[in-house]
Amino acid sequence: MSRRRTQIAIVGGGPAGLLLGHLLRLEGIDVVIVERASADYVLGRIRAGVLEATLTDLLHRLGIDQRLKAEGLPHDGFYLADGEKLIHIHVGELTGKTVTVYGQTEVTRDLMDAAEDRGLEIVYEAGDVALHDIETEAPYLTYSKDGVEHRLDARFICGCDGFHGPSRKAIPESAGRTYEKVYPFGWLGILADVPPCHHELIYANHPNGFALASMRSASRSRYYIQVPVDEDINQWPDDRLWDELALRLGPEAARHLTRGTAIEKSIAPLRSFVFEPMRYGSLFLAGDSAHIVPPTGAKGLNLAASDVTYLSDALIRYFRSGDGTGIGGYSDRALARVWKSERFSWQLTTLMHRFPATSPFDRRMQQAELDYIAGSRSAQAAIAENYVGLPL
Amino acid sequence: MSRRRTQIAIVGGGPAGLLLGHLLRLEGIDVVIVERASADYVLGRIRAGVLEATLTDLLHRLGIDQRLKAEGLPHDGFYLADGEKLIHIHVGELTGKTVTVYGQTEVTRDLMDAAEDRGLEIVYEAGDVALHDIETEAPYLTYSKDGVEHRLDARFICGCDGFHGPSRKAIPESAGRTYEKVYPFGWLGILADVPPCHHELIYANHPNGFALASMRSASRSRYYIQVPVDEDINQWPDDRLWDELALRLGPEAARHLTRGTAIEKSIAPLRSFVFEPMRYGSLFLAGDSAHIVPPTGAKGLNLAASDVTYLSDALIRYFRSGDGTGIGGYSDRALARVWKSERFSWQLTTLMHRFPATSPFDRRMQQAELDYIAGSRSAQAAIAENYVGLPL
Repeated sequence: MSRRRTQIAIVGGGPAGLLLGHLLRLEGIDVVIVERASADYVLGRIRAGVLEATLTDLLHRLGIDQRLKAEGLPHDGFYLADGEKLIHIHVGELTGKTVTVYGQTEVTRDLMDAAEDRGLEIVYEAGDVALHDIETEAPYLTYSKDGVEHRLDARFICGCDGFHGPSRKAIPESAGRTYEKVYPFGWLGILADVPPCHHELIYANHPNGFALASMRSASRSRYYIQVPVDEDINQWPDDRLWDELALRLGPEAARHLTRGTAIEKSIAPLRSFVFEPMRYGSLFLAGDSAHIVPPTGAKGLNLAASDVTYLSDALIRYFRSGDGTGIGGYSDRALARVWKSERFSWQLTTLMHRFPATSPFDRRMQQAELDYIAGSRSAQAAIAENYVGLPL
Repeated sequence: MSRRRTQIAIVGGGPAGLLLGHLLRLEGIDVVIVERASADYVLGRIRAGVLEATLTDLLHRLGIDQRLKAEGLPHDGFYLADGEKLIHIHVGELTGKTVTVYGQTEVTRDLMDAAEDRGLEIVYEAGDVALHDIETEAPYLTYSKDGVEHRLDARFICGCDGFHGPSRKAIPESAGRTYEKVYPFGWLGILADVPPCHHELIYANHPNGFALASMRSASRSRYYIQVPVDEDINQWPDDRLWDELALRLGPEAARHLTRGTAIEKSIAPLRSFVFEPMRYGSLFLAGDSAHIVPPTGAKGLNLAASDVTYLSDALIRYFRSGDGTGIGGYSDRALARVWKSERFSWQLTTLMHRFPATSPFDRRMQQAELDYIAGSRSAQAAIAENYVGLPL
């Protein structure tokens, strides 16, 4: 058994763990990130691509935003489509802010590259990661790597290891509470190297179900359609998927739809999930380990960024001055924003999807809400302020 | 069989029928209102008491607003309560408009009194009202009164006879479509001659269920609590009801709650209902005969007022100049506003009530929405603009 010590052990080397690691390193705090997958595997996860200022501000603070600035696409609006008309939500005009389209994969790559430059240590391919003594002030991780057992002692452990990671599961059931909603459908996503059909995102509620036109860059498009959660992906050869996208997005978007071969195609389930509290003893949870939002509205990565902002502030204060009020307040502070983003993601999901149990009345409520939004600046402003990110 | 002729026959002598009758009479159009109940019975119906400008403007135009102006209470805000805090929705500041608290019963009384003065004919206690030949241009009503059968021919019939009246039922099933949601709870209302606990309305979402503090005047209060739809009203003696109101409305309201003997106490079910279209041949529907909203947000009477505004405009244009475009467009025009009010009433009902099937996640969504509203001017503005009434 190899044994060593650090100030902060971070479980998970995705964007949440990497962001947190960099923020702490910048303050001279010793950090080790332990990730069970390989760097290539982490980079291969295709996720969200719409960044709030919450996240771009963090990357700027870290000085890891050169490529983001060069390649990120500032967006100051998006569309809601109801099968007939396009409703423009001009977030720039309504909020004075913008979002940035830049793939999560690219954020992760930039953070990984900087980790090498800055000596932020990441242990990849760590097997059997387990948390110990988290209820004490001397917690530690164990993991295996290249046939050797390792023990990593730390003052705190930060669980940035996603929904399926070991961190949340290390908390005794009686110490937390779980809130969950599983949606009766999934998103079939396609990534293709074709120009986007529109320079802004389009969220469409069509009688056949939801569709989303999105992009990662000016030459790479990302599209989704709502499918039954148990759908067989083999039922969706590229041609059928492009036909369905053209139908659901409506004639305006279809006219500019460029078809291409799928680089990636997969079905993801939709879930709302929150675990409370986000701290147990010496363990803090951040990002998907504590909460999942359905992807409608693109809040997942952004919520990880706000968690990490709060958590790094609290830990830095603790290590600088021994002041524990920040870490004591972390869970409540993070959860207040988490629940608001959960609400927005749930509301936009509910508004834009077809639910199997939808009654004709419910369907008309969706239409009435879209009609109302189309004509109300206040309703548009409420959506816009959530879309760009509520204040930290 | 006594037989006579008028230009417009109105079925129903509640506020919708009376308003429409007065508007048409003002233009010299011949109108007869046929009401199956007595005038006293109609006046005895305790309903809403929050009037949008949509309605007060109509009463002003009719010159039937002397008492409204003297006794109506202008309200420029209301509260949402979440069991802990009170969230003030300052509709005056957010929209530049106000609503007026004045009982529906008082509106009806004023319209009845003016009918006598102005020679607007109302046939009360008309039995077995039936509609005939509505698909033709020569429709007629039949009814019995004092043992005599009557036939009333008209160019158009206007069905202002509420949810249970004969007008909507006279339309062949194949010619219309019904949208409906029945809520799994009712409102237990109490009317008492005591000063209101607050000068503004309070809508409360308490773990025990919804409560509403409302009033008809400075000395007459109207309160409601959510109860199971099959609740036995005998389970709620006055004392128990006051205790429960004090609990659900929260400590701030409870401190000023004056108890008193119930003048009226009853349980009403909650329903969302829309029938489309609102015209069939020579029959027009207006108000509750075509649509029902749950009482949350007080839209029922106000929606009748907007229907009647549109319908009287269309009929006046037709009789003045033979222009049928107004009556041709009535249903679509009225329904556009109906669906938006249905949406607002459904949304506020969903936000503020406890549903038997509510999951812990759903409950947190209610709390998150109330928290969000508490901190967002845009969200408050969206609620406020619906509360004061969307533009005609």
